[in-house]
Amino acid sequence: MEFVHDSLGQRVRFGTSGAAAALASEVAERDAKRVMVIAAPAEQELAERITTGLPVALSYQEVVMHVPVEVADRARHAAQGADADLVFSIGGGSTTGLAKAVALTSGLPIIAVPTTYAGSEATPVWGLTEGSTKTTGVDPRVLPKTVVYDAALTLSLPVELSVASGLNAMAHCIDSLWAPRADPINAALATEGIRALAAGLPAVVREPRALAGREQLLYAAYLSATAFASAGSGLHHKICHLLGGRFDLPHAQTHAIVLPYVLALNGAAAPEASARIAGALAAAEALDGLWSLYEALAAPRALADYGLPRTGIPEAARALVELVPPGNPRAVGEVDLLKLLEAAWAGTDPREFRAELNR
Amino acid sequence: MEFVHDSLGQRVRFGTSGAAAALASEVAERDAKRVMVIAAPAEQELAERITTGLPVALSYQEVVMHVPVEVADRARHAAQGADADLVFSIGGGSTTGLAKAVALTSGLPIIAVPTTYAGSEATPVWGLTEGSTKTTGVDPRVLPKTVVYDAALTLSLPVELSVASGLNAMAHCIDSLWAPRADPINAALATEGIRALAAGLPAVVREPRALAGREQLLYAAYLSATAFASAGSGLHHKICHLLGGRFDLPHAQTHAIVLPYVLALNGAAAPEASARIAGALAAAEALDGLWSLYEALAAPRALADYGLPRTGIPEAARALVELVPPGNPRAVGEVDLLKLLEAAWAGTDPREFRAELNR
Repeated sequence: MEFVHDSLGQRVRFGTSGAAAALASEVAERDAKRVMVIAAPAEQELAERITTGLPVALSYQEVVMHVPVEVADRARHAAQGADADLVFSIGGGSTTGLAKAVALTSGLPIIAVPTTYAGSEATPVWGLTEGSTKTTGVDPRVLPKTVVYDAALTLSLPVELSVASGLNAMAHCIDSLWAPRADPINAALATEGIRALAAGLPAVVREPRALAGREQLLYAAYLSATAFASAGSGLHHKICHLLGGRFDLPHAQTHAIVLPYVLALNGAAAPEASARIAGALAAAEALDGLWSLYEALAAPRALADYGLPRTGIPEAARALVELVPPGNPRAVGEVDLLKLLEAAWAGTDPREFRAELNR
Repeated sequence: MEFVHDSLGQRVRFGTSGAAAALASEVAERDAKRVMVIAAPAEQELAERITTGLPVALSYQEVVMHVPVEVADRARHAAQGADADLVFSIGGGSTTGLAKAVALTSGLPIIAVPTTYAGSEATPVWGLTEGSTKTTGVDPRVLPKTVVYDAALTLSLPVELSVASGLNAMAHCIDSLWAPRADPINAALATEGIRALAAGLPAVVREPRALAGREQLLYAAYLSATAFASAGSGLHHKICHLLGGRFDLPHAQTHAIVLPYVLALNGAAAPEASARIAGALAAAEALDGLWSLYEALAAPRALADYGLPRTGIPEAARALVELVPPGNPRAVGEVDLLKLLEAAWAGTDPREFRAELNR
C-alpha cells in the first residue's frame, strides 16, 4: 500500500428543500454584503426563489458550455464592477465552471448549488475554451467552499437524463478504482458512490418525483466527483474524452455506454476492484451486476444511436492506443480497442464482448 | 438524508519505509529552514533516523500524557527560541498532542508521523490539562498539514497493544455510525475502516513482524479518526470517557472491552449501521462478526482485569444516564447501563447480555 492522497477542505450541506436556509447561513457566517448569483436563464426562477431576502448585488445569466474565455472575461468584469464578495453558482456543470473562472482570477469564494449530477462542485479543476482548444487546470481557489445539495432542485431533470448523468457518475466511481492515482481512500468513497447509485437510479426510474432516489443520486454525484478528482482519468475517461472530442458525442450518454465495456476489459485483471464493485452492487459478479442495472434502467446502449460513425472507429482505436494509462490493470492493444469500440457502437451485451476478447 | 459535513484539507503520504523520503519532500516543498522535531525519548533514535540530513533546528523530547499546560508552554517557548518554521511530531497521541499545542498559539504547520494507531493526527482537536482538568477544543490550525504513515515505524508496537489500539479504532468507526453528527460520508469512511481492521488485526496477531497487516491498521487508524472527528462522540465514547476519567482505566483496553456491549445494546435499533458493520466484517450479523474477531484476537475482555471496581458500577450507571446522546438509536435507561457495565466488568459474552436486555 503506497499512495499520496490530498483531502480537500470543503463543507457539504445536504438537505431536501434546505437550499434557501443553507445559503442564508453561508451569507451570515461569511458576513457577505454583495453576492454575485450565477444562474442560466433556465434556472433563473429557481435561483430567485432560493436567494430571496439575501444581499444579491448582481444576477448573472450568461452561461455557456465549456466556458469560452470571452464569456469568462465578461463575468469577471461584472463581478469586479459589482464589487462582489461572494459567488453563488446555481445550476449544472457549465454554471459551476463559470463561477470557477471568476474565482480563478478574483479569489472570490464560491458557494455551489448543483442542480444536476455533474460533480464539478466537488473538484478544484477549472476549464476554459479558446476557439476549439480547451485548457484545464487545478487550483485550490476554484474549489467551492461549500456545496449545497437540495434534491428538490433536481426534480426538473428528466428521467432519461438522470439515468445518463447517474451512469456518468458511476463511470467516475468505477474508473477511479484503476486510475493513475487510485488509492484506498478514493476506493472507499467510490464504493459508497456505486452503492448509492445502485439504490438511487432504479428509484428515480420507478418514481421520478420521489425525493429519496434523487437524494441518493446527488449524494453519489458528490462521492464520484471526489473520488474521480483525486484518482484522475483511467482508461474509461481516456476513451470517452477522445470520442467526445472527435465526434461531438453527448457527454453523459457516451460515458454511460462505454463503461460496461471498459469493465468487461479490465475486470478480470483487477480482482480487488471487481470485488468492490460487485459488493456495492449487491451482485455475485461485477459485470453481471452492472449490466442488470443497465437493463433495469433501460440505459443508453449503442454509440451508433448518439452519432458515432462506424467508419471513425479504426482511426479512434489507433489514436487510443497511445492514451492507455501505463497503470491500467492489463495491457490494452489496438485490437482490444477496436473490439471495444465496435461493441459499444453496436450495443452488444458486454459479456459477449468479454468472451470475444478471450478468443 | 440531511447533514452538514466538513471535509478537512490534509495530505496523506502512505508508504512502508517511506518516512524519511516523505519528510524530505515536505521540507523541500515548504522551503523549511528550521524544523522543530518533537519525539519522546523512546522514539528518539527512530526520529533521528528519518530526519537525517534535514534542517533540524531543535530536537524536543519532553512529551507528557494529556499535555499539561506547563509542558505546552515550555515547548512553545522552545519553538519560538529556535525560530522554528515547521514542526515534525514523531510518535503517538501525546506527541501529536504537544505539537498541536505549539501550533495552536504559533500557527506553525505540523507534519505528523504517527507510530501508533491513536488517530489524533487526522483531527483538528487539541487538548490541554491544567491540574486534573482537561480542556479540549477544535481549531483548524492544529490539524497537521500532512500525515506520513510508515508501517515500518509501528513494528515496535507489541501485539497486545496493537490489538487494543486497533479495537479502539474499531470503536471510533462503529460509534461514528450513530454519533450526533453521523452522516453517510462518515459512514463510508467508517465502513472502510472496519473492513481494514478486520483484515489487519488477525494478520498482525498471526505474524507481528509482517508489514501488510500493520499497513491495514495504520490505514484504518486514519479512517477511524477522520470518521470520529467528524461524527463526534456517541454512546460508546460517553461510557468510556466517564469510566476512564473516574477509575483511571487504560484508554485503548477500555474502548476495546466496552464496544461489543454497546453494539449489543444499539444494534437492533440501528439496522442500517448493523448491516454496514456486518458487511465490512464479512459476517451474517454484526455482533456475531465482531465477537468472532474478538475471540480470534484473544482481545481484552473484562474491565475487572483493568481496574474497574465492581462497587463503582451503580454510581457510574447513574451518572451515565445523563450523558446518553439524544440521537442514540434507542432509549437507554439506568437499568440498561447497569446491565451493560456489569457485563463489561465480567466479560460476559455480549450475545448473552443482548438476550438478557430483552428479558
